[in-house]
Amino acid sequence: MNGKQIWKPGTMLNPVPVVMVSCGTFPDKMNIITVAWAGTICSDPAMLSISVRKERFSHSLIQDTGKFVVNLVTDRLVKVTDWCGVKSGRDVNKFAETGLTPQKANTSDCPIIAQSPVNIECTVTQVIELGSHDMFIAKIDTVDVDDSLIDPKTGALKLYKAGLAVYSHGFYYKTGEMIGRFGYSVKKQTKDNKK
Amino acid sequence: MNGKQIWKPGTMLNPVPVVMVSCGTFPDKMNIITVAWAGTICSDPAMLSISVRKERFSHSLIQDTGKFVVNLVTDRLVKVTDWCGVKSGRDVNKFAETGLTPQKANTSDCPIIAQSPVNIECTVTQVIELGSHDMFIAKIDTVDVDDSLIDPKTGALKLYKAGLAVYSHGFYYKTGEMIGRFGYSVKKQTKDNKK
Repeated sequence: MNGKQIWKPGTMLNPVPVVMVSCGTFPDKMNIITVAWAGTICSDPAMLSISVRKERFSHSLIQDTGKFVVNLVTDRLVKVTDWCGVKSGRDVNKFAETGLTPQKANTSDCPIIAQSPVNIECTVTQVIELGSHDMFIAKIDTVDVDDSLIDPKTGALKLYKAGLAVYSHGFYYKTGEMIGRFGYSVKKQTKDNKK
Repeated sequence: MNGKQIWKPGTMLNPVPVVMVSCGTFPDKMNIITVAWAGTICSDPAMLSISVRKERFSHSLIQDTGKFVVNLVTDRLVKVTDWCGVKSGRDVNKFAETGLTPQKANTSDCPIIAQSPVNIECTVTQVIELGSHDMFIAKIDTVDVDDSLIDPKTGALKLYKAGLAVYSHGFYYKTGEMIGRFGYSVKKQTKDNKK
């Protein structure tokens, strides 16, 4: 085993999801913001949080409407996701420039991004000021799932088919090889899970 | 483009980090809990949150001490991580059973997991009751980084060398192929980033 160096506090929890958050009001006052500080925070009720800098254009859109949508990002969407993370909605119309298609959400006037395979529609329940970022705590209202991810026979979700991307310490990566299923460490080996 | 199905609210933000949280007091009253509901929530000060069910053994350990450590998980550590997520510290001594090595943290009496390449030492600043889970909001006090991840010439962190794992909808995966660096969508192509 190697030794360790003691570093100053840093945002070292990795890998993290990388998502496009769509917000504002469809179809006139909309934006997309790329967020890496996002996570599930409760199973029942289903809740998540996103953290956004106060000075970001989307901050006030989310604050004003109390609504946003988390759009999951596939390998193919990484380049536009990166672009949406670098540009500001004050200067550009991100939907128009990227070719991403806005559609009205089911539970609010927010836009969802049609090209994203999973759209998580949320309502803000609490905002916590932390420092550089405000954390928007939100209840998940509904989830829109692309037909292609659903097994037509069983109705089960095959999320691996989406090819979701992750972010780790400044780089985007594909989701790699499957290692095991939750609980595999205590399952007896059968024909199905032996390999 | 396919159509979409509207699903009921669910914890569909994926992929997520999968980490072992070590807590309690070194060396006598310690535990490890596997957490997928974890995320960075602020850059400055560096903060993260973990969400833990009230009934979990570790919940009271974290509540009592106000301290915990987030230990990042490599491909090799996934099996013990899964095991720590299935078993309860009420029934087993997880350090003894897994062979994971506890060491005293630098900033608290918590144990860190020596085999994890990055240990993020935290102090709880707020607990928010959400439903099935309580969210522990925490300030990062220090980060312990394995020597092998640090470039000896530049001192830069090469986190990709760790081979971190992610969790997505019930399955563990390796971090896959690199897609690009943050900002690559607006960088001019040079010899270095062309391919």
